[in-house]
Amino acid sequence: MEWSTEKRYLPYEKWSAKELLELQAQASNSPYQLHYHIRPKSGLMNDPNGFSYFNNEWHVFYQSYPFGPVHGLKSWAHCVSKDLVHWKDLGTAIYPDTALDSHGAYSGSAKVIGDKLFLMYTGNARDENWIRHPHQMGAFMDAANKIEKLPKSLIEQPKHTTDHFRDPQILEHNGKFYCIIGAQDKATKTGKISLFEAETVSGPWKDLGYVDFSKDDMGYMIECPNLVFIDEKPILIFCPQGMDKDVVNYRNIYPNMYLIGEKFDFETGKFTSNSQIKNLDEGFDVYATQPFNAPDGKVYALSWIGLPDLTYPTDAENWSGCYSQVKELSLKNGKLIQKPVPATTNLRGEAVEFTGEMTTKNQFELKLQIAAGQDAVLKIAANDENTECLKLHIDTKTGKLILDRKNSGLAVNEKYGTERAIAIAKNSAVDLDIFVDHSLIEVFVNGGENVLTGRFFPKGGSNKLVLDRDINFKAKYWEMADI
Amino acid sequence: MEWSTEKRYLPYEKWSAKELLELQAQASNSPYQLHYHIRPKSGLMNDPNGFSYFNNEWHVFYQSYPFGPVHGLKSWAHCVSKDLVHWKDLGTAIYPDTALDSHGAYSGSAKVIGDKLFLMYTGNARDENWIRHPHQMGAFMDAANKIEKLPKSLIEQPKHTTDHFRDPQILEHNGKFYCIIGAQDKATKTGKISLFEAETVSGPWKDLGYVDFSKDDMGYMIECPNLVFIDEKPILIFCPQGMDKDVVNYRNIYPNMYLIGEKFDFETGKFTSNSQIKNLDEGFDVYATQPFNAPDGKVYALSWIGLPDLTYPTDAENWSGCYSQVKELSLKNGKLIQKPVPATTNLRGEAVEFTGEMTTKNQFELKLQIAAGQDAVLKIAANDENTECLKLHIDTKTGKLILDRKNSGLAVNEKYGTERAIAIAKNSAVDLDIFVDHSLIEVFVNGGENVLTGRFFPKGGSNKLVLDRDINFKAKYWEMADI
Repeated sequence: MEWSTEKRYLPYEKWSAKELLELQAQASNSPYQLHYHIRPKSGLMNDPNGFSYFNNEWHVFYQSYPFGPVHGLKSWAHCVSKDLVHWKDLGTAIYPDTALDSHGAYSGSAKVIGDKLFLMYTGNARDENWIRHPHQMGAFMDAANKIEKLPKSLIEQPKHTTDHFRDPQILEHNGKFYCIIGAQDKATKTGKISLFEAETVSGPWKDLGYVDFSKDDMGYMIECPNLVFIDEKPILIFCPQGMDKDVVNYRNIYPNMYLIGEKFDFETGKFTSNSQIKNLDEGFDVYATQPFNAPDGKVYALSWIGLPDLTYPTDAENWSGCYSQVKELSLKNGKLIQKPVPATTNLRGEAVEFTGEMTTKNQFELKLQIAAGQDAVLKIAANDENTECLKLHIDTKTGKLILDRKNSGLAVNEKYGTERAIAIAKNSAVDLDIFVDHSLIEVFVNGGENVLTGRFFPKGGSNKLVLDRDINFKAKYWEMADI
Repeated sequence: MEWSTEKRYLPYEKWSAKELLELQAQASNSPYQLHYHIRPKSGLMNDPNGFSYFNNEWHVFYQSYPFGPVHGLKSWAHCVSKDLVHWKDLGTAIYPDTALDSHGAYSGSAKVIGDKLFLMYTGNARDENWIRHPHQMGAFMDAANKIEKLPKSLIEQPKHTTDHFRDPQILEHNGKFYCIIGAQDKATKTGKISLFEAETVSGPWKDLGYVDFSKDDMGYMIECPNLVFIDEKPILIFCPQGMDKDVVNYRNIYPNMYLIGEKFDFETGKFTSNSQIKNLDEGFDVYATQPFNAPDGKVYALSWIGLPDLTYPTDAENWSGCYSQVKELSLKNGKLIQKPVPATTNLRGEAVEFTGEMTTKNQFELKLQIAAGQDAVLKIAANDENTECLKLHIDTKTGKLILDRKNSGLAVNEKYGTERAIAIAKNSAVDLDIFVDHSLIEVFVNGGENVLTGRFFPKGGSNKLVLDRDINFKAKYWEMADI
């Protein structure tokens, strides 16, 4: 199918209900469909938006283009959960239906204000010359999930940025509201994070300039900046685009990175850090992670598993993308730790001892402890001949962990490499908590010190789980329930 | 909204995707929405269709009109389950898109044939003079849930019936295929069940005449006839329309009835019985129950909770109808027993002792044992003042159980009465297993000897559960999880 610009921006009214019903059924029936992760009802999902706790429920919205696996005219779709694990898709919540967001209700965040949930997002509008006008917009959602947009833009594009100015995260500090927004500086064409301040969420919002967090060049744009606080330390999580690999090495087309700080000065935008910018995830496909400081005192995050400007095999089935499971973030010895939330265990079926070979439904959790001095390959979603599989090479002698999707089924963006490797402690045992959901793998290493996440697309019937050598290990396996 | 005939039969292509997205979100966000029962994604759901076990999953389809709470142009939507409790809606499966089913893919059944699921249903077609032509159609669904319709009608309207000729149930017996079809006899304008026979499901199908199961007049039509076998006895479950209440008393606009037989002769259609025709459910809204003999040796059934020709309060929210939970049917002392399936207990949260008053989320199971000689009213979804609630009057002195929705919130079809009562044993204890799901109640009496099912529509915040008198009882309460 030819996805012309005109077609991508066709109003939702111009698509037929029949087309949508067919797309929804096609996505539901896909063998690659996720069964215990948030996934699009149809079409493409990208950034998580408005992750929040409101009215006794967890909320997350997703950037949705319901009509195909492309970045077309975006809306927000709404999911709710009681436990951060079982999510219910309530459908489209914000349509691109005003002059200010006519070309997309783009990404944003949420904050409880009184008895409502305030949503702040980027309205994407293009004029008759196809010039982009980004408007930072506000909307209030009530307890019945009814959303009313504020009629006016809250923040217009500053003179010092280009039209790449989007993804507001709203924050509250000392009785004032702040927001940070991904931006491209007009003079230098470099990626920045803009900071704004207001007395009330409906404004007026005052431009405080850019957040000062690094001397390094962040590339040409920063998307999806988020600031959270863990143990009173500020953590910046963001997506630099076009960053030089000499600054921080990465292998994906665009990385999702983080920086642990010591202090953030909301008035000056100074982000003080003794740390380095690092990759948030060591796998293939994590992007646009949205964390938030939850009222239970924890910090939760979830990620789009998909990357801008790339295609995926499910494009052939007219849908694309999914979300990671919700991860709880914490700090330990100056390191960011990412862990599954406790309720994830509610999805577990009966515990089964994995002794080195079994048939699965490609929908499981495997907890694997490998002793020091071992070297083996875990073959996931392997075919009967063991010739095709997703490989997790675990070497506790020299200290390496390699996720290899080269020969795991359908090819996925091989241009960006088919392996992702991390160093682990040499001659030490390693603990892996591995989640597989048909076309997604999430590997939590040593209690979440590292995470490797990636999509893979096994061919039909490839469902064996095999440890290729007789090594010293212990493993527990659970089939996971659908959500 | 005016639902003209033209509008009801507007092709799905003529509705916009925006309208459908809005309808889906409106249904999802309804405070009356079901959380652990099958419910329509949007619009109206009626008869369950094609209830079956195939490819290691349970399947049920629902009659769907996605665009509003009316009986418009029907399609089949498809739900699957691993445990008969957690159902996943895979979306539209059969569209009314051929000349034979241009005015609706109406109800039908399913049978596994080889490695496919054979679906037999009524294609509803109207000609230019709006004359109805019912065609009994076939389709095969493969393991990827891909459906191919057979190009030709399998059974045309016999000369001896009117155009009210629909709802085929396919059966297999002694290596031959049979189907029974709801019919109106042309000469007498009375409700009948037609019987057909074939060597292969694709036909030719031979008319064996009407099933001979009663001397009584069944009214002007029989819908949704189903034959199942329990302990080798045939059970007929069907919906007579316009039946005289002197034949069997009932209070709903149309009843759903059953007859336990001794023997069914497939060749002659003779259904021998020593029993009486009885109401399948003693509540307000059960219709079109579809049972089937499952490969595990059990008989399962589920019911549309909604009645033809009536409206419901959620019509104002553009959706209507839901399904009962799956019920396991059995025989005990010549009585039909209907019980929740075992996996229902997987939805239970922590067990709580109910001592006579509590606040709920209107999403629970309550197991209530009342001693002999007691008399009290259980108030369900009661408001704070206890003035508005669904009442279950339990009298184990004189032996009465009355479900009263008169003052339970929004009015529901009061023309057909606001109470449903059954006799229970006098001066005997009674066991009740009560399921509440926001706008649905199912009461299983004494291990499923009777069931009372009904919709009710409490106003916002009415969520107390109160036993109005201090009586001798024991009760356990579980909040139920969403499916």
